[in-house]
Amino acid sequence: MKKTDVLIIGGSAAGMVAAITGKNSWPEKSFTLVKKQKDVMVPCGIPYIFGTLDSSQLNIMPVDNMMDKAGVESIVDEVIAIDKDNKTATLQGGEVIAFDKLVIGTGSVPAVPRWLKGSELDNVFVIPKDKTYLDTMKKKLNGLKKVVVIGAGFIGVEFADELNKSGHEVTLVEKECCILYSAFDEEVAGRIGEILAARGVNIITGNGIKEVAGSGKAEKVILENGDVLEADAVILSMGYRPNTELAKKSGIDVDADGFIEVDEYMRTHHKDIFATGDCAQKRDFITRKRVPTMLASTACAEARVAGMNLFNIHVVKTFSGTISIYSTALGEYGFGTAGIIERRALEEDIAVITGTFEGVDRHPGNMPDTKKQMVKLIVAKYSGVIIGGEVIGGLSAGELTNVIGLAIENRMSVNSLLISQIGTHPCLTASPAAYPLIKAAEVVATKLRNLNK
Amino acid sequence: MKKTDVLIIGGSAAGMVAAITGKNSWPEKSFTLVKKQKDVMVPCGIPYIFGTLDSSQLNIMPVDNMMDKAGVESIVDEVIAIDKDNKTATLQGGEVIAFDKLVIGTGSVPAVPRWLKGSELDNVFVIPKDKTYLDTMKKKLNGLKKVVVIGAGFIGVEFADELNKSGHEVTLVEKECCILYSAFDEEVAGRIGEILAARGVNIITGNGIKEVAGSGKAEKVILENGDVLEADAVILSMGYRPNTELAKKSGIDVDADGFIEVDEYMRTHHKDIFATGDCAQKRDFITRKRVPTMLASTACAEARVAGMNLFNIHVVKTFSGTISIYSTALGEYGFGTAGIIERRALEEDIAVITGTFEGVDRHPGNMPDTKKQMVKLIVAKYSGVIIGGEVIGGLSAGELTNVIGLAIENRMSVNSLLISQIGTHPCLTASPAAYPLIKAAEVVATKLRNLNK
Repeated sequence: MKKTDVLIIGGSAAGMVAAITGKNSWPEKSFTLVKKQKDVMVPCGIPYIFGTLDSSQLNIMPVDNMMDKAGVESIVDEVIAIDKDNKTATLQGGEVIAFDKLVIGTGSVPAVPRWLKGSELDNVFVIPKDKTYLDTMKKKLNGLKKVVVIGAGFIGVEFADELNKSGHEVTLVEKECCILYSAFDEEVAGRIGEILAARGVNIITGNGIKEVAGSGKAEKVILENGDVLEADAVILSMGYRPNTELAKKSGIDVDADGFIEVDEYMRTHHKDIFATGDCAQKRDFITRKRVPTMLASTACAEARVAGMNLFNIHVVKTFSGTISIYSTALGEYGFGTAGIIERRALEEDIAVITGTFEGVDRHPGNMPDTKKQMVKLIVAKYSGVIIGGEVIGGLSAGELTNVIGLAIENRMSVNSLLISQIGTHPCLTASPAAYPLIKAAEVVATKLRNLNK
Repeated sequence: MKKTDVLIIGGSAAGMVAAITGKNSWPEKSFTLVKKQKDVMVPCGIPYIFGTLDSSQLNIMPVDNMMDKAGVESIVDEVIAIDKDNKTATLQGGEVIAFDKLVIGTGSVPAVPRWLKGSELDNVFVIPKDKTYLDTMKKKLNGLKKVVVIGAGFIGVEFADELNKSGHEVTLVEKECCILYSAFDEEVAGRIGEILAARGVNIITGNGIKEVAGSGKAEKVILENGDVLEADAVILSMGYRPNTELAKKSGIDVDADGFIEVDEYMRTHHKDIFATGDCAQKRDFITRKRVPTMLASTACAEARVAGMNLFNIHVVKTFSGTISIYSTALGEYGFGTAGIIERRALEEDIAVITGTFEGVDRHPGNMPDTKKQMVKLIVAKYSGVIIGGEVIGGLSAGELTNVIGLAIENRMSVNSLLISQIGTHPCLTASPAAYPLIKAAEVVATKLRNLNK
């Protein structure tokens, strides 16, 4: 029987980073990573295969190369059973591997609601992180004109924009009142929607899908209100569910939402078994509730914690909850969100004050490529602690969102942010005198001061 | 006699922001700002008047507009005397203004060493923040081919690149071993130098200027080692000194380096008089020593502290020292630095460990406009606290530098940075699995762990 000190199941972001950080932390231990396919997709790059990039070949994550460099053995196969008591894993190919520690990073799979009729028709697609599927999907889409994308989360929005870019007639359907509903407040999402519409995507909000109709292949999408959309292809971007069948059948505890239960060190109830990434339970940084957030960046942060603490908690560091930080782009515009949005804060009974400021992302505003930049900050009313932020801007919006994320993670107050030193440059950032993040903090500080009067 | 509750001297970043924040914090008080010229230049935008922007008209800071919006009276005149005991200021025009609180934001002026011969020749320029001077300078430079820029700090580098862009034959002369010597460690600065050279600027390092020679007008620059450069024009970018003549002659305490002495609330020794920006004393965030850093972003942070605390320290917030955070750009490349560099840390006897990681600023690396991205982190050896960072990348390098700045300001350890959640996106940032900032932290963490073995 093959033996390894650490066995890692899954070769996407969570598994790869757990392997690298783990091996780096415990160089004397042997590490083995098992992945289902030879070529692993860069998860966030998948939409870009359908427009910006010529093929999925340009979106391959260099897992083998990185495993080689780290000194981790990489096997292409599938783990079909885990014996948690005897600490062995059985591969599809028949091999059994004994491990001392196990990291499960089996990720997530597209979720299609059971009530949805017609999802089995030809030219109806989901978006798995599977190169073979995506290659076939791309080939089929090539000959099809009218594409309806269902679900306007990040992936749906990015697919809609990329397919529009490559010449399709795209309609994006969202049952909530605006696109990117869970990531941005309405007034911010509304502006992103305007940008997407101006790029040529037809957007329908406040109306969900009822069924896909057609004989043999997709021909129409029927919406909740009865409206009918013609469609040569339908892409269902309706969310993902954790891929935890293996964990479940191996007796590893999974919560009611299907995520593997973990503590703050990413350990399951079995002390030698860890789980990280989309398949692992997450808690919100602010509300402390369980949340279904699935982000490669969260997965990587979790994987680092697991990797560093595989053999003992020699470095006391825990994963403090997900702050749901992410960004996206449409052409030259970038958007980002970190922490909690105002709507969700109110739903969670968190008393908040918000501040919004709109400026430009260069200074003077006459510099080439200047874009409007808007920042909305969400601040806890009684402590002044920053708990969320939303950004619209040019391409620097991604890293600006990370500035806000770090402020949230450090539980900075609006007053400490106000006197923070921000580096600025005409070609790179907003002006120091009108830096939207700081100005939004000023708006909040003024509101807080008026409360205390 | 005219009376105002708060008088502000200076209409650049420090004065403007002190006025806005002050009025916002104390809306019931009257504010008056005195500036020497009607049109104030965006300070960081000045180099860009000479290439990217058509004229200085496109680089005007909207001070009047912002003062109007804030409800601050703005006067074009010069304060020539301050009576600190009777709390009055006399203007060049003869008017005397009585104030309750005074904020001095008189900025800085170009410094030309006394030993430098030939600086009075025609076509030898300095770089003041003075529209009239800059307009004349631009007109004169138009007809001149060979320009020698002396001093390769940020402003010298930016001038060299802009003049090269607009068709001049540019030589940049620096007495230290590399350009941007005080802002970056040699190996980082060396790479920026390669980029600048590839853009067509002739760079001479390790050789200072001795004199400018010519009959009536600049014809040659003679270097320390005797080399002679032909020059139709010479631009002296050899530093700035605080503009504190008015303070000195008014009996306001000025330190040995010429900066107005202030406490952490930006108050001078006279309780009703504040100073902010380039004219005010600064302490380094890490070393606690006095430093001559002059940055619009520092000025704005100081001005916010002064503005919020004009009438009492009702909000306990102090300026914790400058972290010298700034960024610059050359075409599509961006560069940034925050906190202390390794060389200076060693000079200051700070025990440090550094980590450098080079990746790319998009993911996958096949995305359009992908640039290499390098991050160097400087970490205190025994506490693991991050005290500095340097970045080379694309145009997102500016905001990425602000992520590092916030980590420094929050005194984050390399371990807490390691598990921070960073939002990532193919079009906006590096990959979450190979984000150079986090990977550089990993390099440091590994070195620290090996130390403890």
